Amino acid sequence: MSLAENTNISIEKIAKSRIDSIDFENLKFGTTFSDHMLVCHYKDGQWGDVQIKPYGPMSFEPSINVFHYGQAIFEGMKAYKDSNDDVWLFRPRENWKRFNKSAERMEMPQIDETRFVDGLKTLLNLDREWVKPGQGNALYLRPFMIGTHPGVVAGPSSEFMFCIICSPARTYYSGKVKVQIAEHYSRAANGGVGYTKCSGNYAGQFYPTKLAQQKGYQQVIWTDDATHTKLEEAGTMNVFFRIGDTLITAPTSERILDGVTRKSLLDIAKSKGIDIDVRTIVVQELLDAHAKGELKEIFGAGTAVTIGQIEGFAYQEKFYSLPEIADENSFAVQLKNSLQGIQQKTVEDIFGWTEKVEKK
Amino acid sequence: MSLAENTNISIEKIAKSRIDSIDFENLKFGTTFSDHMLVCHYKDGQWGDVQIKPYGPMSFEPSINVFHYGQAIFEGMKAYKDSNDDVWLFRPRENWKRFNKSAERMEMPQIDETRFVDGLKTLLNLDREWVKPGQGNALYLRPFMIGTHPGVVAGPSSEFMFCIICSPARTYYSGKVKVQIAEHYSRAANGGVGYTKCSGNYAGQFYPTKLAQQKGYQQVIWTDDATHTKLEEAGTMNVFFRIGDTLITAPTSERILDGVTRKSLLDIAKSKGIDIDVRTIVVQELLDAHAKGELKEIFGAGTAVTIGQIEGFAYQEKFYSLPEIADENSFAVQLKNSLQGIQQKTVEDIFGWTEKVEKK
Ligand SMILES: Cc1ncc(COP(=O)(O)O)c(C=O)c1O
Ligand SMILES: Cc1ncc(COP(=O)(O)O)c(C=O)c1O
Repeated sequence: MSLAENTNISIEKIAKSRIDSIDFENLKFGTTFSDHMLVCHYKDGQWGDVQIKPYGPMSFEPSINVFHYGQAIFEGMKAYKDSNDDVWLFRPRENWKRFNKSAERMEMPQIDETRFVDGLKTLLNLDREWVKPGQGNALYLRPFMIGTHPGVVAGPSSEFMFCIICSPARTYYSGKVKVQIAEHYSRAANGGVGYTKCSGNYAGQFYPTKLAQQKGYQQVIWTDDATHTKLEEAGTMNVFFRIGDTLITAPTSERILDGVTRKSLLDIAKSKGIDIDVRTIVVQELLDAHAKGELKEIFGAGTAVTIGQIEGFAYQEKFYSLPEIADENSFAVQLKNSLQGIQQKTVEDIFGWTEKVEKK
Repeated sequence: MSLAENTNISIEKIAKSRIDSIDFENLKFGTTFSDHMLVCHYKDGQWGDVQIKPYGPMSFEPSINVFHYGQAIFEGMKAYKDSNDDVWLFRPRENWKRFNKSAERMEMPQIDETRFVDGLKTLLNLDREWVKPGQGNALYLRPFMIGTHPGVVAGPSSEFMFCIICSPARTYYSGKVKVQIAEHYSRAANGGVGYTKCSGNYAGQFYPTKLAQQKGYQQVIWTDDATHTKLEEAGTMNVFFRIGDTLITAPTSERILDGVTRKSLLDIAKSKGIDIDVRTIVVQELLDAHAKGELKEIFGAGTAVTIGQIEGFAYQEKFYSLPEIADENSFAVQLKNSLQGIQQKTVEDIFGWTEKVEKK
């Protein structure tokens, strides 16, 4: 039985691929989309068939839930191509599980593994030419779900659309970034939605991030909203701190996204014998370690960038530079090489994290 | 010079009104829309012309900002018809100002008073048949703005749509409701977006509200996320507490919406010589006042319901009933009658809050 039969996937192919018009050497992240997308509608308490069809605009009433009450969640994943022209996913079922965690908190329906993972693979099989091989190349995958029921009643939607769109990408950030530690603004509340990938968590960050950028810092490191002392995460990255030779990162919580990159890095670090410490870390500790010369590295971890090295942080109008560190001594660089190697299939995947997209 | 010339408002009228197909006696809130809507696009750093056209679906790419990063804000207002067949707005410029406050925090463009208020009046003039006279009837107005730029980059949109849709409504709630005081979940963070009418503030409330509803409480009264002791507001209402003969409500803050109903009620109460106290009020105070028999009334205040009386609250698995109170002794009923009277033009508007929609 074919996958398509198994899950009732209908496929409408594009008349002519757009791929020849794309300059893959000069991609701006997230602005180019592959030929096809996956669409699935939820109505009357159940998901309908999965449709794969040409990427393009869709029609919505101006009163749909997502425009007013913000029921919208997403995931961010990547597909990679190895030197044998095979396409691979990295831990896709982790994204599927997290998507459903987000859905639960946002009062949206759960979606089954078949529609999410097998649907995605069917889509990728069709658009496999859009996944380019080679270091730093990937097809960024964006599953998302929105409330589509029309009506301006402040309550959950009864209809939803699940959709996957794909955007060819080269690695996101280049170079180290400067960050600002949040002293007033926040991204998450206790008992709130910080651990989900709901759309509102992102919109709320743009203004404070702009203020930071106006001062010359590219990103904000968020702290807990009650005391602004606990270091939590960055805009779309979890954060790691190296003090001495220990790698510290905050435990996941209601306020912090359980990043796939974060947990993969923790496993890789463990396998390399790096000392790791998953615990609350406060700003004062960072300042103290910096004063003693023990704060060696800070980096962000997320699907878009893999690892983003941080050159220093601003706090209370003062900027704290981190020491220069040679690549061979850097945890960030070591871990990034290992993780990217596994993802790109140039390093053995001892963890069993990669999943092949079978050719059909 | 006509209003339309002044603001470059183009009007495309519906071929045939749908109004005869509507059962105005049996309206479900927020599900029926009037013939026309207002649409205005922001691009290249500026707002374009205002278009008024038939209400209906529009086409959007699946990658637009609002579906992923949640840039979406709205307002909720009402138009009323008096016995002379004149249509009135209630403090529309307060909504316009608050809309721009929301826009600033969500990193969205400011919109001018002309496009918002005059645009709205032009729309209402066209759809004035949709505003029905008589107690409890109104046309609910929903201005909103969404990020419409395609592209899955976690950053603010460069293109936006401002839109106003109108939904005929009869007053929202009927009867008193039971509420639950939030002990774990939250709607707002310090340094967050709680004071804005951004879409994400609503989606985050649906799940905890469902949990409360499963226990028999229709609404949640939100508390501060850090201590869950301060009583803040309800889902789409500010909250008032009457202890003895003093009316208490929390001060507005970063976490609380500055409600137009709330501030109008404070002014009306003042004019009636009611003792008001705008200050932080904590759960323990409520419990103590209840124990002493001094907690006489709790009510919510918002555009949809005007005033929603609360019959009791649940806290730590216990339900606290409020005493029965005769209408003539109830602050809620007195204030509601005064406010609705002003809105419906049956009570003199000594505050100058109402604005006529001129016939054109
Ligand atoms: C808020 C936030 N934190 C952390 C991450 C990193 O998560 P992951 O490694 O699964 O991409 C992301 C991005 O996905 C994010 O949006
Ligand atoms: C969170 C919240 N609080 C309070 C209110 C009441 O505000 P207003 O009286 O302006 O309608 C609303 C509704 O608009 C709301 O959404």
